[in-house]
Amino acid sequence: MVKKTDTGARADPLPVRRAATAYDVAKLAGVSQSAVSRAFTPGASVAPETRKRIITAAKELSYRPNLIARSLIKQRSGTIGVVISYLQNQFNPEVLESLSRALKAAGYNILLFTVDPHSADPVLEEVLQLQVEALVLGSTSLSSAVADECAIAGIPVVLFNRTSAVNSVSSVAGDNVAGSRRIAQFLAAGGHRRFGYIAGLENSSTNQEREAGYTTWLQQNRLSVSSRAVGNYTFQGAWDAMREICSQPERPDAVFCANDHMAIAALEVARSEFGLDVPGDLSIVGFDDVGAARWPSFSLTSFSQPVDVMVAETVRILLGLIGGETATREAITVPGHLIVRRSARLPPHGIERNGDVLVWCPSDPLVP
Amino acid sequence: MVKKTDTGARADPLPVRRAATAYDVAKLAGVSQSAVSRAFTPGASVAPETRKRIITAAKELSYRPNLIARSLIKQRSGTIGVVISYLQNQFNPEVLESLSRALKAAGYNILLFTVDPHSADPVLEEVLQLQVEALVLGSTSLSSAVADECAIAGIPVVLFNRTSAVNSVSSVAGDNVAGSRRIAQFLAAGGHRRFGYIAGLENSSTNQEREAGYTTWLQQNRLSVSSRAVGNYTFQGAWDAMREICSQPERPDAVFCANDHMAIAALEVARSEFGLDVPGDLSIVGFDDVGAARWPSFSLTSFSQPVDVMVAETVRILLGLIGGETATREAITVPGHLIVRRSARLPPHGIERNGDVLVWCPSDPLVP
Repeated sequence: MVKKTDTGARADPLPVRRAATAYDVAKLAGVSQSAVSRAFTPGASVAPETRKRIITAAKELSYRPNLIARSLIKQRSGTIGVVISYLQNQFNPEVLESLSRALKAAGYNILLFTVDPHSADPVLEEVLQLQVEALVLGSTSLSSAVADECAIAGIPVVLFNRTSAVNSVSSVAGDNVAGSRRIAQFLAAGGHRRFGYIAGLENSSTNQEREAGYTTWLQQNRLSVSSRAVGNYTFQGAWDAMREICSQPERPDAVFCANDHMAIAALEVARSEFGLDVPGDLSIVGFDDVGAARWPSFSLTSFSQPVDVMVAETVRILLGLIGGETATREAITVPGHLIVRRSARLPPHGIERNGDVLVWCPSDPLVP
Repeated sequence: MVKKTDTGARADPLPVRRAATAYDVAKLAGVSQSAVSRAFTPGASVAPETRKRIITAAKELSYRPNLIARSLIKQRSGTIGVVISYLQNQFNPEVLESLSRALKAAGYNILLFTVDPHSADPVLEEVLQLQVEALVLGSTSLSSAVADECAIAGIPVVLFNRTSAVNSVSSVAGDNVAGSRRIAQFLAAGGHRRFGYIAGLENSSTNQEREAGYTTWLQQNRLSVSSRAVGNYTFQGAWDAMREICSQPERPDAVFCANDHMAIAALEVARSEFGLDVPGDLSIVGFDDVGAARWPSFSLTSFSQPVDVMVAETVRILLGLIGGETATREAITVPGHLIVRRSARLPPHGIERNGDVLVWCPSDPLVP
């Protein structure tokens, strides 16, 4: 028995002594066993407050309900739930199309949940009812509690384009920190001295990582962000943020926007409302390298997130989780490039051709 | 018995004497009854040629297989299949987001099928297997045969942003013919004389209707399309088409593109490759009024397709079909406006403010 538990512990990254039961969860949460059962049964009614207590207790005990029962009754549904928000951000349709292609090739269809980017919409009930085999959370604002609840309910989850502070959930993201450091370095090398930043949703991991990479590099090099405004990842939000930044007496000479969707809005405002020449008066850099970044009107310098590579990693992890082959958590960071176009003033050196794009590869990095 | 049949015939728009059976279909198709049964059973194997014969026979006889059996075994899945292609076209993510919101409000989730815009991918097998309650076909290229097959198999179908030549399937579309006539009239009133057209997929109903509206009005007014190229609704296709049109010795002074996505590509080419001023040298008009049409870089004059209204109509029809309340086919045309911005030279009169946009409302139409 001890040996068996040890073997189990080796397959599972967490040290497990005895699998927690509904009885343990009920005891810890101070509720009946039937309430625990209802909390994990699709469509069953539980008071929200009770449910919250049960989920907390289940988390604490690493309780995984009904796994055998579910595997017996669950027919292979062939569907993967994808939660995504705000398809106006050009990155999201690109992700959805790529995911759809890759999952179809693997024999799965997509059950689509679009959520309001500003609400941490709990989709768990729906997900349980619809018996998706796994879930991709591609919304940057979704509360990571939902991810935890799914993991507890035995539904494989992969976070896409975001990371989680809790270590139970796998994730695939671009290289937010390195990319933003590279952008800061690129702008400094290009002779800029007044640095602006337009933030995305401040509670999102992508914004936190991108802002940290940018500001930390600047600080380490005795520079700083002189103007900052929050665009919340929306077009209108970025529009208002850029208007605020450009209205200040000491206008920055470079603005890094936390994604391309906001950078396009910033470009439009700078030109149409302030008559600024980009990059003559002001440089603008984005993150994602969406399709529209290539359009001549924008010609946006941007750090790339290679969607197809990120999607391939996501599908690989999902299939492993569904097949029960992997129980370990993977946090994948997919590297990108700083794609150099015309929206930002160029440094004197370090620009190299890479296929049909120019990338910045400083051979003599200003800092390690 | 006769009376009962008559009552049935009144509820159904088609005159039905006796419901066709699998036997009737088998006889007409010259196959066995079991082949007919297999053709309408998810996952069962039938030779493609045989299946085609069976479908043709079933269509001819208005055969609806297994309806009672299906209603007995089918649990309410709560999902609607949505077939869409090419999410790069800004119109499609807008539709998907609006559909997702409206269906969620009605208690449904979306099972998403993205298809290659150039292939008439048969999704029927998948649809039958996944037991979606209804299907929205939002791809302009999908063969209408798929729609017919679904209708035969008893799955409610609504075509979105396209119409069908066959009269068995409901559809919701914008006012392609009136909109394109209005565009021709607007350009003529603006003093243009050399008219270009960039076509979408030539076999799509949207392109056929938009091209017909444009060219017919011009012909009726002793004008004509002097340059035409096919962009197939893709960005790259429109890019190449516009390059072809601008390279001709007699360049048009106005180009109507069959949708905004292509119009944006045309604008980019005209400016970046030919150094043309839009609308000084050349006017460009699109169709759809997508979000990006409002961006100052494009400021695209475009005939609007009100997505939320189109989606509301689609959901209304779907719910009626699912509930079995309606059996009649509806072909809805949602009216739009010619939204006037800066990408086309203006006529001397007829421009009116409508909320926060300008629209062209010729009080004295050049033709009825």
